[in-house]
Amino acid sequence: MVNLNDVARKAHVSKMTVSRVINHPDQVSPEVMTLVQQAIKAVGYVPNQVARALVNKRHYVIRFLLLEDVATVEPNYAKLLIRLAQNLQQKGYTLEISLDITAETKSIDGIIVSGWRQEDLSKLQALDVPVTLYGAAPTNCPLSSVDVDNQVGIEKATEYMWRQGYRDIYYIGLSLDLPFAKQREAGYRAVMAQKGGRVSVYQTENHAHLADTLVTNLMHNFQLPTAIVCATDRIALGVLRAVQRVYHIPRECGVIGFDGVFIDQLTQPQLTTVRQPFALIAEKIVAQIISQIESETTLETNNVSVSPDIVVRETTSL
Amino acid sequence: MVNLNDVARKAHVSKMTVSRVINHPDQVSPEVMTLVQQAIKAVGYVPNQVARALVNKRHYVIRFLLLEDVATVEPNYAKLLIRLAQNLQQKGYTLEISLDITAETKSIDGIIVSGWRQEDLSKLQALDVPVTLYGAAPTNCPLSSVDVDNQVGIEKATEYMWRQGYRDIYYIGLSLDLPFAKQREAGYRAVMAQKGGRVSVYQTENHAHLADTLVTNLMHNFQLPTAIVCATDRIALGVLRAVQRVYHIPRECGVIGFDGVFIDQLTQPQLTTVRQPFALIAEKIVAQIISQIESETTLETNNVSVSPDIVVRETTSL
Repeated sequence: MVNLNDVARKAHVSKMTVSRVINHPDQVSPEVMTLVQQAIKAVGYVPNQVARALVNKRHYVIRFLLLEDVATVEPNYAKLLIRLAQNLQQKGYTLEISLDITAETKSIDGIIVSGWRQEDLSKLQALDVPVTLYGAAPTNCPLSSVDVDNQVGIEKATEYMWRQGYRDIYYIGLSLDLPFAKQREAGYRAVMAQKGGRVSVYQTENHAHLADTLVTNLMHNFQLPTAIVCATDRIALGVLRAVQRVYHIPRECGVIGFDGVFIDQLTQPQLTTVRQPFALIAEKIVAQIISQIESETTLETNNVSVSPDIVVRETTSL
Repeated sequence: MVNLNDVARKAHVSKMTVSRVINHPDQVSPEVMTLVQQAIKAVGYVPNQVARALVNKRHYVIRFLLLEDVATVEPNYAKLLIRLAQNLQQKGYTLEISLDITAETKSIDGIIVSGWRQEDLSKLQALDVPVTLYGAAPTNCPLSSVDVDNQVGIEKATEYMWRQGYRDIYYIGLSLDLPFAKQREAGYRAVMAQKGGRVSVYQTENHAHLADTLVTNLMHNFQLPTAIVCATDRIALGVLRAVQRVYHIPRECGVIGFDGVFIDQLTQPQLTTVRQPFALIAEKIVAQIISQIESETTLETNNVSVSPDIVVRETTSL
């Protein structure tokens, strides 16, 4: 099997030089680079990942650490994981999946964490590899993070309903004491305050049938045309069911959701929603963790919010 | 940082002996094993994964290779991936995700492949690491595989509807020329042949709205009470919508789906379905790939089918 020695011999350079071309390309002259690369091609050498790692002290492996309960795992993860794997692959890294916050970190270069809570942050900070959080960071978060811009997403949704001509606008939010839930509600309140519209905020757990029941009990108060801005597509699904029993969607009542992963494709009529831009989110997460890994110094904490866009379908025009 | 030397010194044995305890435990006596393990604990040594790999020539990494188009990725994958990661973790392996069939295999011990088609099999066979397929294998498949038992699943579903008292039983299948689709249809036909019932098979693409349209055009032929066995939950979702416009579910028409991943939780009424046992499927996949890796000789091809069970909810009782 072809190895480093064969390349060195072919190029008439030392093994040390070949190793430098592979692992520290910034340290070699363009002439040497070309010479060695040609030799590599000529002998058909494929760098050994494990050997490379030992030289660099880098493993070219990033861990996706999922701290959420497996049973409640959302379909969102499938898309995100695959996008992350794609992005990392382009940069020469592999993505491994782990559910164990205590797993050893000797074989990895960095960690992307999802499903974390406030209580996990100190443990994550104490790990000896760079960490990037996926999800809405609390204020003064000690770690870098990337998330969809929850507040801007619901601001856009609420603004959109207003522009469509709806004036009696409800917000059905999540009864969760987490940053992302509070940010979404803040988006609705900000727009309604700016427009001087009546604020109607209700909360539910993230289940279609609970949202259905909640809205069923609100409908007698509707001043048509009414709009319902929903914190998630799951909630929107339940809201659509409740409303359709009594009113015409969208002429009497408009509904908009948030996520655009999967559920929005299953509703009838087709749901207008705020789509989480997973492809872009994955790019930002990867850019973040790699810059943390490749930086010689400790970087400042960076909390990135990615603005989502509205996907207009059938549930929102007067 | 604590290393092998510290353990050797603590246990009063050679480094070679410590290495053997860690990497070839079958080659050491119980007394030496205990002595060294106590020393490991006492000094707080954590084996270095990379060093272990070089000794064993094993990397303790399994790749999940996804060949399907990212855009059509189902939420099913989130559950399966996480279950796989959990199972592998228990056996000391990490799971990496890749989308590239040409990626080098030097740093991994085996591959689990999903989203493959008949055309990919020769390329997969040619790889120089063990491969296990996830998904329904064609007859005379050259590689080992694990899948839910598609035929048994739909047999159970059809049998169940018959036992509930439905006699006019339809099967809405998938218009796909793939083994799993044909196996599911075969399950319905087998039961109807055995019962002497009328065979009513229709096919659609895997979209709720298409299934909705299809069934809307069939309903005038129903001889109540009618049952509809669906190849997937997505199809069942569309079928439920169509039927509910005209008939009572389940008294006039019963509906049963297949998957039990996610969609079944979103329907109204709540959908009876054949649940894919992902936890068990993941266990079987991991057992399979590890036995292929750890076997000294080439194993016979093994095609495992895991029987699913019915989750009874609200759409199926007379």
